[in-house]
Amino acid sequence: MSEKTAITPATHTAPPAKFSHGVKKGNILQVAGQVGFLPAEEGKAPTPAGPTLREQTLQTFANVKAILEEGGATWDDVMMMRVYLTEVDHFAEMNEIYNQYFEEQGLKAPASARTTVYVGLPKGLLIEIDALAVLG
Amino acid sequence: MSEKTAITPATHTAPPAKFSHGVKKGNILQVAGQVGFLPAEEGKAPTPAGPTLREQTLQTFANVKAILEEGGATWDDVMMMRVYLTEVDHFAEMNEIYNQYFEEQGLKAPASARTTVYVGLPKGLLIEIDALAVLG
Amino acid sequence: MSEKTAITPATHTAPPAKFSHGVKKGNILQVAGQVGFLPAEEGKAPTPAGPTLREQTLQTFANVKAILEEGGATWDDVMMMRVYLTEVDHFAEMNEIYNQYFEEQGLKAPASARTTVYVGLPKGLLIEIDALAVLG
Repeated sequence: MSEKTAITPATHTAPPAKFSHGVKKGNILQVAGQVGFLPAEEGKAPTPAGPTLREQTLQTFANVKAILEEGGATWDDVMMMRVYLTEVDHFAEMNEIYNQYFEEQGLKAPASARTTVYVGLPKGLLIEIDALAVLG
Repeated sequence: MSEKTAITPATHTAPPAKFSHGVKKGNILQVAGQVGFLPAEEGKAPTPAGPTLREQTLQTFANVKAILEEGGATWDDVMMMRVYLTEVDHFAEMNEIYNQYFEEQGLKAPASARTTVYVGLPKGLLIEIDALAVLG
Repeated sequence: MSEKTAITPATHTAPPAKFSHGVKKGNILQVAGQVGFLPAEEGKAPTPAGPTLREQTLQTFANVKAILEEGGATWDDVMMMRVYLTEVDHFAEMNEIYNQYFEEQGLKAPASARTTVYVGLPKGLLIEIDALAVLG
């Protein structure tokens, strides 16, 4: 019997509903859809890192990573990332940012699988990412 | 060697194609995308619980729950829910319904992770939800 | 401690970014979003199998299957398939192709769960599918 635990990094704003930013049970860690919100500040509404795809993508990565780390995982444990963009035209730029970011992370294991699709997101948000990790 | 079993609650309409409403293998239970269709009635086409987001969301929850229970799981075992809405404007109302519903369910474990995105759905449908559960 | 391995069928074009077509760790195998690209040819850009939904769907299935097999899995191990279409009007035809294909595959286990939603995809692509498998 493994226990299910919630993962809530101190940097994160409270979820807008009764869900967890991350949950872990046994060797499975699931990261909820993250967007490019800056670290939470008391009494301030969630604020995107900036209007650009680059700013939001890097902040989204930071938010996913904070949950992984809080749950005792790293990027190397991630099996699948789902990338939701709002514009097909952002694909090439997102890939550049993605490649550079993961190069800098110095992964030791193979890169995770990924699916990218184009959906609607709340106004001002250009990217959302969630992740499934399997711990060692 | 764990066996893969299909989960087919009696309340469910036959899937429109060769897929299962739920499958279980080992400690993993996957619920297929559920919508707000009322319990199946012999000789009647699948019918949404109503035209409103509230009616469809509550029926969708009931449909997910029926699969979880048929598979020996509960909401507490759910790691991830993917919520597909058709309108960004429905987010706040969905969250209200979501919070109230899960408060009433009396969860004993932390709430699951969640991703919400805005997509197209077949005409008349306002919400679709699928779920990944890890059993204890 | 299970090792995470990348799954890269010889037939596949290099991913457009630092992600793997498939990854396996322990008993979990994740297939990245596949589209209807023909087997890779040296020095040739990725090319869809054709302009029709049928051509692209069958090629997408072949691409998912190649990853499953390279990872030591079969369709019978698949728990969840996510089908992304660009047009609600393609649902019925996709289901026909889907049913016929899986009938021909001679599944021994119950069909996987599935979610179908309608999203944007890069120009010329009509379908994308990813899959989560749990090995025996």
